[in-house]
Amino acid sequence: MKTIALTVEYDGTAYSGWQRQNNGPTVQQALEEAIAHFASPAHLIGAGRTDAGVHARGQVACFRTDSAIPGPRWALALNTRLPYDIRVAASWEAPADFHAQYHACGKHYRYSFFYRPTGSALLGRYSWHVSGPLQVQAMMEAAPYFEGTHDFSACMAAGAQTRSPVRTIYRSRITPCGDVLHFDVWGNGFLYNQVRIMAGTLYYVGLGKLQGRDIPALLQSCDRTRTGPTAPPQGLCLERVYYTPHPWDDLPEA
Amino acid sequence: MKTIALTVEYDGTAYSGWQRQNNGPTVQQALEEAIAHFASPAHLIGAGRTDAGVHARGQVACFRTDSAIPGPRWALALNTRLPYDIRVAASWEAPADFHAQYHACGKHYRYSFFYRPTGSALLGRYSWHVSGPLQVQAMMEAAPYFEGTHDFSACMAAGAQTRSPVRTIYRSRITPCGDVLHFDVWGNGFLYNQVRIMAGTLYYVGLGKLQGRDIPALLQSCDRTRTGPTAPPQGLCLERVYYTPHPWDDLPEA
Repeated sequence: MKTIALTVEYDGTAYSGWQRQNNGPTVQQALEEAIAHFASPAHLIGAGRTDAGVHARGQVACFRTDSAIPGPRWALALNTRLPYDIRVAASWEAPADFHAQYHACGKHYRYSFFYRPTGSALLGRYSWHVSGPLQVQAMMEAAPYFEGTHDFSACMAAGAQTRSPVRTIYRSRITPCGDVLHFDVWGNGFLYNQVRIMAGTLYYVGLGKLQGRDIPALLQSCDRTRTGPTAPPQGLCLERVYYTPHPWDDLPEA
Repeated sequence: MKTIALTVEYDGTAYSGWQRQNNGPTVQQALEEAIAHFASPAHLIGAGRTDAGVHARGQVACFRTDSAIPGPRWALALNTRLPYDIRVAASWEAPADFHAQYHACGKHYRYSFFYRPTGSALLGRYSWHVSGPLQVQAMMEAAPYFEGTHDFSACMAAGAQTRSPVRTIYRSRITPCGDVLHFDVWGNGFLYNQVRIMAGTLYYVGLGKLQGRDIPALLQSCDRTRTGPTAPPQGLCLERVYYTPHPWDDLPEA
């Protein structure tokens, strides 16, 4: 048996998220069906379970197989059987015990706000249209307040379960780029809806409903009702999963 | 009667181009139908007639109306009646004799190549997937050979008609951006399929089938069979239309 790892890019618009379920098509299911065209059915493990409508540029997944297909060929093979909104960008043979979820040391998510009075025909699928006016400078100053090791219960979907709500955010930044604001966040892991609630909280900062310096107290309160709304899914993209032990040493310049 | 001008953004994937026709839905038709919800039916004039599948971030269009709706309100009104893949980004009252097509002094088009062995789930709608390997440096060096005033018959769709095939290209550049190559071109006007044939010619340079220094002779030959293929429409986007008399003075730094 070999372990094959995949880097997967997908447009989440048409999917009920990553994880296989009965309510609608999922990315995991589409990939498992594609694998079954070439080898015995296999269970695919993803690094992160993205929600319905969330996109990925660098999801990582793995499966075990006794197929003779060489690791790098899997990307080309699977793409012939996948819909165009899911592409395997790369594939390789990983160490036999590689586990895409448990071995992940960090993830980079990007949340995109589109802030113009009118919406965007080209970016509407990939951003949250906030018609403003937004205090962008205040949002830029607020984002780094999330950095550090904190109990992020105040940024977890109500009712979600977790063994520990403590996570480390290595870097959290807002960058304006034309009509788009990118919120980029790197962390060792994320609670359910955490990035979208952080994005919603920064949105409230942009509206003047919250201030950046309020964020430490919001986090300390562990009170979900004090943070901002859960930003809608189409603005979120899982950009990259890190497997090196110290991913924060590798971050791009701020 | 007033003249209302619009800046229009659209995802051309679902449309048979800009211009109203019998074969399928067009952007002009969708906009004229939206206008007719608020005022007497009006004929809409676009700066450029983009082809089926071509996108626009900055198409400009105008129509004449006796409606009392103020210029800036039209964008919001029309967006309530338009499909999500067409958005009016801005609207204003133009001088009464403004003509979006005849008064245009220049246009900026961007053609996007996606050059990775595997395609892109997120950019597939907006780029041409060329699996390479491409000689990117050769493409970058070749692009400026199109600059200047030339007879562009060799870059016009066979059978297309025009009063004069002479056009001026102010700037023509290839810029790598991750897995994407942007071909940006500014000119005083473009022949039918001109940008897509220029893109296809640069693609041939990337493959080593042509060299940048061949381009002056290709243009002089006026022979469509010597330039590259017509690159597919989904990579093309009309970025901006210029109405100032010297748009080249206003170009961004190369």
